[in-house]
Amino acid sequence: LEPIKATLFPGDGIGPEIAESVKQVFRAAEVPIEWEEHFVADEVDPRTGSLLTWESLESVRRNRVGLKGPMATPIGKGHRSLNLTLRKELGLYANVRPCLNLPGYKTRYDNVNLVTIRENTEGEYSGLEHQVVRGVVESLKIITRQASLRVAEYAFHYAKMNGRQRVSSIHKANIMRKTDGLFLKCCREVAEKYPDITYEEVIIDNCCMMLVKNPSLFDVLVMPNLYGDIISDLCAGLIGGLGLTPSCNIGEGGIILAEAVHGSAPDIAGKNLANPTAFLLSSVMMLRHLNLNDKADRIHNAILSTISEGQYRTADLGGTASTTDFAKAICDHL
Amino acid sequence: LEPIKATLFPGDGIGPEIAESVKQVFRAAEVPIEWEEHFVADEVDPRTGSLLTWESLESVRRNRVGLKGPMATPIGKGHRSLNLTLRKELGLYANVRPCLNLPGYKTRYDNVNLVTIRENTEGEYSGLEHQVVRGVVESLKIITRQASLRVAEYAFHYAKMNGRQRVSSIHKANIMRKTDGLFLKCCREVAEKYPDITYEEVIIDNCCMMLVKNPSLFDVLVMPNLYGDIISDLCAGLIGGLGLTPSCNIGEGGIILAEAVHGSAPDIAGKNLANPTAFLLSSVMMLRHLNLNDKADRIHNAILSTISEGQYRTADLGGTASTTDFAKAICDHL
Ligand SMILES: CC(C)[C@H](C(=O)O)[C@@H](O)C(=O)O
Ligand SMILES: CC(C)[C@H](C(=O)O)[C@@H](O)C(=O)O
Repeated sequence: LEPIKATLFPGDGIGPEIAESVKQVFRAAEVPIEWEEHFVADEVDPRTGSLLTWESLESVRRNRVGLKGPMATPIGKGHRSLNLTLRKELGLYANVRPCLNLPGYKTRYDNVNLVTIRENTEGEYSGLEHQVVRGVVESLKIITRQASLRVAEYAFHYAKMNGRQRVSSIHKANIMRKTDGLFLKCCREVAEKYPDITYEEVIIDNCCMMLVKNPSLFDVLVMPNLYGDIISDLCAGLIGGLGLTPSCNIGEGGIILAEAVHGSAPDIAGKNLANPTAFLLSSVMMLRHLNLNDKADRIHNAILSTISEGQYRTADLGGTASTTDFAKAICDHL
Repeated sequence: LEPIKATLFPGDGIGPEIAESVKQVFRAAEVPIEWEEHFVADEVDPRTGSLLTWESLESVRRNRVGLKGPMATPIGKGHRSLNLTLRKELGLYANVRPCLNLPGYKTRYDNVNLVTIRENTEGEYSGLEHQVVRGVVESLKIITRQASLRVAEYAFHYAKMNGRQRVSSIHKANIMRKTDGLFLKCCREVAEKYPDITYEEVIIDNCCMMLVKNPSLFDVLVMPNLYGDIISDLCAGLIGGLGLTPSCNIGEGGIILAEAVHGSAPDIAGKNLANPTAFLLSSVMMLRHLNLNDKADRIHNAILSTISEGQYRTADLGGTASTTDFAKAICDHL
């Protein structure tokens, strides 16, 4: 059997350490993946106009599957955000984040089992802004029928494939009648094609209140870019934070880029302290997209057991284990 | 002593019932207030172009102080939101919501003690939207130096007057560099005038995650309109919901309009079931602005004791008391 080629962006800061954990766990589980590793460059690649090399983008386009660690865009040097550039270059139109309690890791909530699906290419992230007159600036929020239908299609498809019952579209169409109104219209159109899935619309402020009161009210949530940014982090907070929350980006032409969405944590980088959980759980999402479900299940269970047993927890979870201790404990569970 | 005149908008749905509770409690506490009561009209008042009568707006402008219940804008008849119209007509530039645990009413959080201060006039609520081409719509977010300075000034002034230590400005200036960037710039300018108050900036997605993990990290939060809309409701959720959260709007020329921000709950209207707590606590905020602090303290304590004792709780708090039972219990505590 030929191994499957996948692109790996270890990323910055703690990225290389947690990427090492993934490689180690994949080896232990004998996952038939061959990594093509790419780092962010120090200089702009003239072929991409960014710090992302042409080779790295080509690698994802060719492999159609990748895993990405945290990328720190250098500040004050005029570089566009690497995360945004990747989304644009690879047409990563949906960001998917399953948000479930980790067994054995207690938070205030024990009934979280939802998935946020965020439109990832437009909305408030258009980058279109200008000064109108001195002291008056405006930003443009752009919503298109095409991108809204695409993410709505994905959300319903995801719900169906994963046996989920309900899709909630999150909006503020009572204020942004045209933009969020178009988004809702597209969701309704798609909803009609999925009569078995309940469709509802929830205003974002109300949604946030409901989420903190009773997150079990939600199943799949789909929403424009900024609301997705906000709500996906809120939901991550319910189960313990970004260090525990996997994510996967869905791109044009079937590209999949799983991603740990936490930061590069420069303060603890290189100290063997980082928690690789989010990166590992993201790699599990990647495996599921490759239909390597046995491997995905095994690794997933090993991660959950290790956290649940509590003996090898990293500092952010109140333990004293190093990154490598934790990864080794997972391998021992395999 | 002349009584102080204040405008009262009982509002729609449960509004009149909970307004009755306020009047009853004010009488029992002998608050020297004379209400000028105004209802939303059924027909557009040609002098205001809205369902808000000219007399009602004049009443607030003359009295400079008012209390407002829930207003339900009729849907599908082309009426602009009554809430938005009031904000605009009265220049209500800041919405202030103290968010504290109610003693005796348990939620998942027992360490909430923060205040959200929301810019209330511009930003994503500009109402400027249009279709660019078929399938492409845009909304304009407008941030001005004037409105940003005004709300920032109010936030720091509020922090100082209320012995609060820290002001956090909530933003997404990493994406909306110009609009949220201007908002931050204005906050920084004002912060310099308050060296005793710690100033920090927190990105909205991270803020929401921190709020659900540990709300005690925050003290005073100031933010543009939509972020304030979202975060103030999230915070209300932390302590039990909009039925328990007071709010007050600060307007041009020293106008104060305290407001229960929950809905008009048409399903339970007229049934003597509504919880008047948010409306009562809002009326307490109004009293503090009038420097009637003794009355404010007495009423506030009576509300808290009644809820805390738990004997007379309305259905939303798991009790069986009617609106009038609850109000009477508060009066008995006075
Ligand atoms: C880093 C930032 C540009 C990014 C975003 O706002 O999308 C981050 O918050 C995320 O959610 O991936
Ligand atoms: C009813 C709606 C227009 C309003 C808003 O979005 O401001 C409400 O959510 C609020 O917070 O007062």
